[in-house]
Amino acid sequence: MDGTYPYCSIERSLGIVGERWTFLILREALFNGVSRFAEFQSALGIAPNVLTARLTTIVDAGVLEKREYKEDGARARSSYHPTAAGDQLKVVLAALQQWGDEFVPREGGPTILRRTTDGARPVRVGFVDDAERPRAVEDVQFVRSEAYGRVSP
Amino acid sequence: MDGTYPYCSIERSLGIVGERWTFLILREALFNGVSRFAEFQSALGIAPNVLTARLTTIVDAGVLEKREYKEDGARARSSYHPTAAGDQLKVVLAALQQWGDEFVPREGGPTILRRTTDGARPVRVGFVDDAERPRAVEDVQFVRSEAYGRVSP
Repeated sequence: MDGTYPYCSIERSLGIVGERWTFLILREALFNGVSRFAEFQSALGIAPNVLTARLTTIVDAGVLEKREYKEDGARARSSYHPTAAGDQLKVVLAALQQWGDEFVPREGGPTILRRTTDGARPVRVGFVDDAERPRAVEDVQFVRSEAYGRVSP
Repeated sequence: MDGTYPYCSIERSLGIVGERWTFLILREALFNGVSRFAEFQSALGIAPNVLTARLTTIVDAGVLEKREYKEDGARARSSYHPTAAGDQLKVVLAALQQWGDEFVPREGGPTILRRTTDGARPVRVGFVDDAERPRAVEDVQFVRSEAYGRVSP
């Protein structure tokens, strides 16, 4: 974590998910379970050199983890799997998805739905307090911490 | 909602919050309660013509609402206030903030904290099912809707 990182954590996150190819790769990995180089390529129609560069950035950011796999008679290849940070990024992508579906809708409705894995119940993204109670947006405030004054913008 | 909109709702949302000045303006408006042109200017050090252009985009996107106000002896001026869409965008910015604070941390810790307005309890962003039960990331899946096949990427 060096001094060139933006002081605002939202900005640091956008520095990762805000780049278009990076975000599309992460969407395939996190929402669709894509893991192999060739699968990313065919799902996104991305040039191999661009895909390699973006995957390197994503692995360096600690969001996907690179593994080797080998199929019979073939040379070793790489696959990419969500880390804990990658799994938690699902909350961010789901929040963006939910907002887009509600406030920038497209004719025909949402193309991807959020459901529980057990009983197929609908799931939304929202605020939850430390007693595990959901909270409305109006019930939440953003306050400056003691660290606020100690860093320069 | 015309046909030039990206088919993916995450991408449509990133089209709005992903632009750096737009995001910084929204952060001031939604997290810090900034509403007046001059306040945005001094908080961000942004050039007036850039600020005017970005505010127009944000108002057109339906995220902030423009109002006129007039102080004694001064000409009418504009202020900008969150719409319902703007209020819900707090969930998106808070999700980005939470992820950045956890996985791309900065020395000294978070500068902005999420708290309930009533009792100052900590608040996180997470998944909530339709019975208002918080759900872990592992308990959520993303499934394609019937609309998925009907639109072209």
